[in-house]
Amino acid sequence: MIEITKETVAQLLYLVHDDPDELQQALGELRTPDIAEALRELPPEAAAKVMAALPFELAVQVFDEPELTRHRCAIIQHIDPARVGPLIEAMSADQQADLFREVPPENRPRLLATVSASTRQALQTLLQYAPNTAGGIMTTEFVTIPSDWTVDQALRLISEVGGRKETVYAVYVTDPETNALVHVVSLRELLTVPRDENVLEIGSRRSPLTVKAETDREEVARLISKYNLLAVPVIDDQRRLLGIVTVDDVIDTLVEEQTEDVQRFGGMEALDAPYMEITFVNMIKKRAGWLCALFLSEMLTATAMQRFQVEIERAAVLALFIPLVMSSGGNSGSQATSLIIRALALQELKLRDWWRIALRELPTGLVLGSILGVIGFTRIVLWQSLHIYSYGPHYMLLATAVGLALVGIVAFGSLAGSMLPFLLKRIGFDPASASAPFVATLVDVTGLVIYFSVAFLILRGTLL
Amino acid sequence: MIEITKETVAQLLYLVHDDPDELQQALGELRTPDIAEALRELPPEAAAKVMAALPFELAVQVFDEPELTRHRCAIIQHIDPARVGPLIEAMSADQQADLFREVPPENRPRLLATVSASTRQALQTLLQYAPNTAGGIMTTEFVTIPSDWTVDQALRLISEVGGRKETVYAVYVTDPETNALVHVVSLRELLTVPRDENVLEIGSRRSPLTVKAETDREEVARLISKYNLLAVPVIDDQRRLLGIVTVDDVIDTLVEEQTEDVQRFGGMEALDAPYMEITFVNMIKKRAGWLCALFLSEMLTATAMQRFQVEIERAAVLALFIPLVMSSGGNSGSQATSLIIRALALQELKLRDWWRIALRELPTGLVLGSILGVIGFTRIVLWQSLHIYSYGPHYMLLATAVGLALVGIVAFGSLAGSMLPFLLKRIGFDPASASAPFVATLVDVTGLVIYFSVAFLILRGTLL
Repeated sequence: MIEITKETVAQLLYLVHDDPDELQQALGELRTPDIAEALRELPPEAAAKVMAALPFELAVQVFDEPELTRHRCAIIQHIDPARVGPLIEAMSADQQADLFREVPPENRPRLLATVSASTRQALQTLLQYAPNTAGGIMTTEFVTIPSDWTVDQALRLISEVGGRKETVYAVYVTDPETNALVHVVSLRELLTVPRDENVLEIGSRRSPLTVKAETDREEVARLISKYNLLAVPVIDDQRRLLGIVTVDDVIDTLVEEQTEDVQRFGGMEALDAPYMEITFVNMIKKRAGWLCALFLSEMLTATAMQRFQVEIERAAVLALFIPLVMSSGGNSGSQATSLIIRALALQELKLRDWWRIALRELPTGLVLGSILGVIGFTRIVLWQSLHIYSYGPHYMLLATAVGLALVGIVAFGSLAGSMLPFLLKRIGFDPASASAPFVATLVDVTGLVIYFSVAFLILRGTLL
Repeated sequence: MIEITKETVAQLLYLVHDDPDELQQALGELRTPDIAEALRELPPEAAAKVMAALPFELAVQVFDEPELTRHRCAIIQHIDPARVGPLIEAMSADQQADLFREVPPENRPRLLATVSASTRQALQTLLQYAPNTAGGIMTTEFVTIPSDWTVDQALRLISEVGGRKETVYAVYVTDPETNALVHVVSLRELLTVPRDENVLEIGSRRSPLTVKAETDREEVARLISKYNLLAVPVIDDQRRLLGIVTVDDVIDTLVEEQTEDVQRFGGMEALDAPYMEITFVNMIKKRAGWLCALFLSEMLTATAMQRFQVEIERAAVLALFIPLVMSSGGNSGSQATSLIIRALALQELKLRDWWRIALRELPTGLVLGSILGVIGFTRIVLWQSLHIYSYGPHYMLLATAVGLALVGIVAFGSLAGSMLPFLLKRIGFDPASASAPFVATLVDVTGLVIYFSVAFLILRGTLL
């Protein structure tokens, strides 16, 4: 199988865009997400030309692909203004809202003027929700029926309007008086019961699972994942249906959050864009902030070291092991932090479990520290005995100091690393802001103090 | 709203399990994933008693919940053997396979004997696939129809068998002669076309998207996510349908992979179990391996420092800034690694893009290093001028050395951090094995050498 890159597909589409037959052939087996992906590789003018050449139905589908986000806004500038209105009008409501979120505020009124009054109103409602909430990712195209309908009536409605809705696999039953959501039935349930039954009679008796418009999208993802739903309804305070969040939006959410979490754990702001698409200046901005903050905190190590300068001058051999013992604390801390961040995100742990974790991480850290301590001790004694390097007459004391310091530093690292996400959550931050470099920096200063204190206790009267 | 913890629900269920009325009331609004979650909080004997008290249908649903994995095996030991067979028999095929994967090999034959011959055979087929492949997460319960059927025949079949299949929203059309998969139609499409049409006439003309049994589950997740599918068919070399992977399995996969990625990026083996459920010994095992490997590599810093011991003895002031400059390299490296790991996972970058990244990370690193260099330089000059600390008569040279070393170390950190995932991928490892501590360790040794080399060049003849 020959693998064709998206760059090649993009160039091909652009080359043939003004010959309908060749374009038809080039489109061949391509699916809309593939076309959207290829358009991202083209400059906006070129992408707009390909878009204009596509059959209208296909153009709408391509423009509806979340893959095209961040590019649609640039492409639309180059599309014939007379065609922009119908194109936006035909998009699904959640993608319309996404598009308008990208448009600079000063251009919004001009673009809003191209769509119908009802679309404009729907858009203004959707745009008031933050993009990381249920309201920000929901769509307003769903199937709703009154609670006095029969299964047969519901199925007839679906076969009429089904093609135009985001999903038909969940049908929302509302009270005809209050419009409140009272029941949800699945299309599967509708198909497997007698057609004259009332829709309220089928499916689960429990009140339907719902979220509010301001519910965090991560929480929506957790609900859909836990309860194996294809969509979850978003309701207001009167239980009226505002929209639904579908499982494919939730998958996009999960993948985005995963990228954010890894980047933040790496010690930077989330990029919010693919690596190759972000400008050099933006890249520096996203990275310099945390790097400077970490650097300024790490300066405390210089301050700590200044206090021990006399000891270092007297026994330079002590300095040799500073990077080794310090980094071990950071490493064990980074392990503990990654464990707790995920356990909190998955709700395996609650804030009030912090002391149970502390009681677990301290002994874990002591054991891990002892393992490293023994290795460190052995290394010094071995190097001395094998005459690889001479640490002076007091090498046994030095080895003991390094070994014991490691026990303390690794234990402290585990404890601090595991408590940091709890602390962040407690003071109202996202626990996932605790990055590996953040923990390492936190542990470094204390690590130095532990190292020199242990060394001072053990080497006093000999080396120091 | 009062939040009831799963521990409370668990205790309540256990307390009332021998009174059917009270049990019914306690179950009330609970959904099966909630019951499964509560059972995890009970000791296996107690969970088995609750299971035995549940109506059979509900017991099967609870046992079918992926939430119960890793506990089912222990619970089943305490369930009346006469009831175990029917329970397993009624589970969905993918969960049956999951259960048997957890059973110790010596107990498998005894448990296999409790199910029917056809289930046994289906199980043995599923069990031959690795758990992280499409075959390992697929189910064998799907709706398949011959290609000469009409829409009406298809819909009739669905209303008869629909309740027993994992999903009815995708219907698989096979060639009656060869059994090869030729087409996939969605239930939505079936419902919105005339009922006398042939099933081959409806839906997309493109050949259906498929995966092989050995396809990595992450790749399956990527496909389902990109093409917004509810399920993807798994086929063999003759294009015969082996099973399907549904979107809810994919969500579970994404969440699991996310946990693994964060834990591995934190510098440890993935736990593969919730934090509170893993034994102390297993926790040590999962963490000690990487911690020791990192420790042994970091020992090179001691070796590097030994080479510079004369310089340190002559100018102990140099040692003061070792932790500061070293950690900056690790921090910028950790940022770059997190960026590249995600870009590779999302297929935004290919292996052959490595040089484009190198050409981007080097200037990024130089700019970031210069920012930190200026801060570092300023700090030393400021502390000296404000008489906070005296770095001796050559403090300007020292400040210059620290500043320049930072430029080099941060640039090297960015470059090394971004190249590491490519290197791992090139030699056949998962790029996500590159953890923050791994990068820091890699950069530390080189950072020391850069620092002392720059210091030697600048301070030769004065301090050194």
